[in-house]
Amino acid sequence: MSELDTVLSHLDADQEAALQRLQTLLRIPSISTDPSYKDDCRKAAEYMAEDLRSIGFDASLRDTPGHPMVVGHNDSAGENAPHFLFYGHYDVQPVDPLDLWNTDPFDPQIVTRDDGSKMIVARGAQDDKGQLMTFVEACRAWKLKTGKLPCRITVFLEGEEESGSPSLPGFLAEHSDELKADVALVCDTEMWSSTRPAICIGLRGMLGEQITIKAADMDLHSGTFGGPAANPIRILAKILAGLHDATGRITIPDFYDGVIETPEEVKAQWDTLGFKTEEFLGGVGLSELAGEQGRSALEMVWARPTCEFNGITGGYTGEGFKTVLPAQASAKVSCRLVGNQDPDKIRTNLRAYVESCLPSDCTVEFTPHGGSGAISLSPDSPAIQSAKDALTDEWGEEAAVIGMGGSIPVVGQFKDLLGMDCLLVGYGLKDDQIHSPNEKYDLKSFQRGARSWARILSALAK
Amino acid sequence: MSELDTVLSHLDADQEAALQRLQTLLRIPSISTDPSYKDDCRKAAEYMAEDLRSIGFDASLRDTPGHPMVVGHNDSAGENAPHFLFYGHYDVQPVDPLDLWNTDPFDPQIVTRDDGSKMIVARGAQDDKGQLMTFVEACRAWKLKTGKLPCRITVFLEGEEESGSPSLPGFLAEHSDELKADVALVCDTEMWSSTRPAICIGLRGMLGEQITIKAADMDLHSGTFGGPAANPIRILAKILAGLHDATGRITIPDFYDGVIETPEEVKAQWDTLGFKTEEFLGGVGLSELAGEQGRSALEMVWARPTCEFNGITGGYTGEGFKTVLPAQASAKVSCRLVGNQDPDKIRTNLRAYVESCLPSDCTVEFTPHGGSGAISLSPDSPAIQSAKDALTDEWGEEAAVIGMGGSIPVVGQFKDLLGMDCLLVGYGLKDDQIHSPNEKYDLKSFQRGARSWARILSALAK
Repeated sequence: MSELDTVLSHLDADQEAALQRLQTLLRIPSISTDPSYKDDCRKAAEYMAEDLRSIGFDASLRDTPGHPMVVGHNDSAGENAPHFLFYGHYDVQPVDPLDLWNTDPFDPQIVTRDDGSKMIVARGAQDDKGQLMTFVEACRAWKLKTGKLPCRITVFLEGEEESGSPSLPGFLAEHSDELKADVALVCDTEMWSSTRPAICIGLRGMLGEQITIKAADMDLHSGTFGGPAANPIRILAKILAGLHDATGRITIPDFYDGVIETPEEVKAQWDTLGFKTEEFLGGVGLSELAGEQGRSALEMVWARPTCEFNGITGGYTGEGFKTVLPAQASAKVSCRLVGNQDPDKIRTNLRAYVESCLPSDCTVEFTPHGGSGAISLSPDSPAIQSAKDALTDEWGEEAAVIGMGGSIPVVGQFKDLLGMDCLLVGYGLKDDQIHSPNEKYDLKSFQRGARSWARILSALAK
Repeated sequence: MSELDTVLSHLDADQEAALQRLQTLLRIPSISTDPSYKDDCRKAAEYMAEDLRSIGFDASLRDTPGHPMVVGHNDSAGENAPHFLFYGHYDVQPVDPLDLWNTDPFDPQIVTRDDGSKMIVARGAQDDKGQLMTFVEACRAWKLKTGKLPCRITVFLEGEEESGSPSLPGFLAEHSDELKADVALVCDTEMWSSTRPAICIGLRGMLGEQITIKAADMDLHSGTFGGPAANPIRILAKILAGLHDATGRITIPDFYDGVIETPEEVKAQWDTLGFKTEEFLGGVGLSELAGEQGRSALEMVWARPTCEFNGITGGYTGEGFKTVLPAQASAKVSCRLVGNQDPDKIRTNLRAYVESCLPSDCTVEFTPHGGSGAISLSPDSPAIQSAKDALTDEWGEEAAVIGMGGSIPVVGQFKDLLGMDCLLVGYGLKDDQIHSPNEKYDLKSFQRGARSWARILSALAK
């Protein structure tokens, strides 16, 4: 029996204990964006550092202006072994609307489907606690069965990924020597399907902006002031409605600068993937393609920029009615970016557009949130080739090399600040409902994910 | 000393006790639109019935499908005396945003200004608890000093005025014989200024509609679905933005049917009132006229219809950011109506417009709220003439006969269901911040309001 086979057998035998470790982590409500969960974020970081120490990492918390980083090194493979940095995040999204959860988001439940397959339901079950624990379990098995890891590994976990990673750039710059490795491994992406693994080589960038329109200096009665007084909801609605033209194109000046048209041969390759728009939209109760006219759904998500509205609020939103003219109204707007779109330039142009829509007696307050360009990785790198073979061995179907609609700003920062490429492998599925109520992670994803990393580590060591 | 003088002297001597009675009423949080305050609404009704019984009314609660009505008769003036119905409402608006209140909205505070004038601050201090108590205090003084009231009086208080008066039409129809009087007295309006009293002869109508746009059957991740999937905030923003054209006119089909252009002579009379747009808007921190181009502020508020957005919500509205595509988004829209605009027709046309804006895979849910046409009363009626003289005697400035931008649907219902005209007299001021944080009522309004009603009752008896 090879070392790898021993490790894989151990992972199979240890499934129940691994699941319990994941559940312990999921019980910590580490919502990074909400200051009231600050202590819980630290608790999650401490839990991870402790767990890493138990498998031979010199892990510790590193304080930042926000939530702490966890950094741990394991050099048991010897100083000449190849060196990889594993990145994950221990923070999670908020849970609202809470009333749409079937069970407490922080009391993880194992749910068995009619076909006997199982999943774990909790906030963070996939994004990113379940995913990052696949890597930690692979390391644990290697350490237990062989006394060491196949490669030198640095684990680097942040606690602000779901709130824009404000402390990350500074931390990377300050600790570049410590964190620089041959390649970064990131487990925050999806499989192509529940049976076919995937490596992601393209990610959209993102910029977020909260726009708050302020009119009168108090809420007004719409009987007394309705008509003559500015209504910030009306101003905001007009601003948002003006951000797309009738064909779905985004109207921010120069927005499409840097967008690269997808080559026909790439589109042809996508066509072979068997992606079905009806199933993609039908799975969430929709049927009509909403984005830019004349683009396929896959192109929209992998290769086209967006401008979406993630939240809006103003005036009376409780039960019943209140005939108020509110003093202010606010929206959260985010753009996904592709190619060489420049987030700073787009933010500047978006703000100028908003300001141009304001009546002279109203003001606007901008709160920036994140800002990172799109990422594109070479499919020919040795690490991607090794991982592709290892994944194909584990799942029995050839690993797909794909793009992704989401944004993982850290990938760009690793490149820019540490000169380090990433290998993006994850075991999420489209129906995992990350960022939504009833987030889940298939136990198959969790268990075979750990087996996949065990194989990838072995392949990368060669 | 005339009977009236005795009564007025008593009101002056009894000011402190009257204020304490008002404070007791203001401590009851009778928010009608929020079901969690149901018991408090009943408590306010019971308090009022008890107080009315203490001054000779046979007052009792009358149950309805919603909050109870209070009805009490006092026939001490004799069966041949003229008969008036006094209408008021004991319910109040919600208090949010609570953090903008300087003190607890249900712990009334007497605040003294730098110039020595005083006001009472609480939710309902003006609208309508303070206003209705001016009438009750006038009755109390007449009863105490003369043993009877000058006219036959029926007091009729409802508890659903701030939530669309759903039980009112049915109750009026069922109790028309009991409630029908010569004229209804309503104390829910404003003075022309802090020194000049007013009688209102024109009120805008209103219809409210909550519009909820539903897209996907769950919240989605904007990385995975941003672009191809419908965004209900975007759809809603487009719908709202389309409700006004570039000149501020409302675009609902046939919306302006029934709107009557204000005659030039009426506009000329308004010009003599000394209304200053800069002061009106400047008082709330604004400077630019927002409504229909080419109309004065006074015309906008008294004689032009509006379509305002009173609340909007959708997606993530907490601190920080969440890159969600929400499943739904919702807005509260209300139209103020004038002339002969038909609220039912406008509601139908508004709904048809909204439906015409929907992508095929999205749905809309409408929740109607209120619906009443505008009111216009004859300035020449004897009751209005008597009240005008009494108010002029009390305040030392001629009572202004004015229009008002707000809506008091009960006025139309008294006319339609009971064939009864209204006399609208109130002592509110423009800066009372009704429906807003820190609602107040000047003690001068409260005290001289009671004196005014004492005079009006005397004048109406003749």
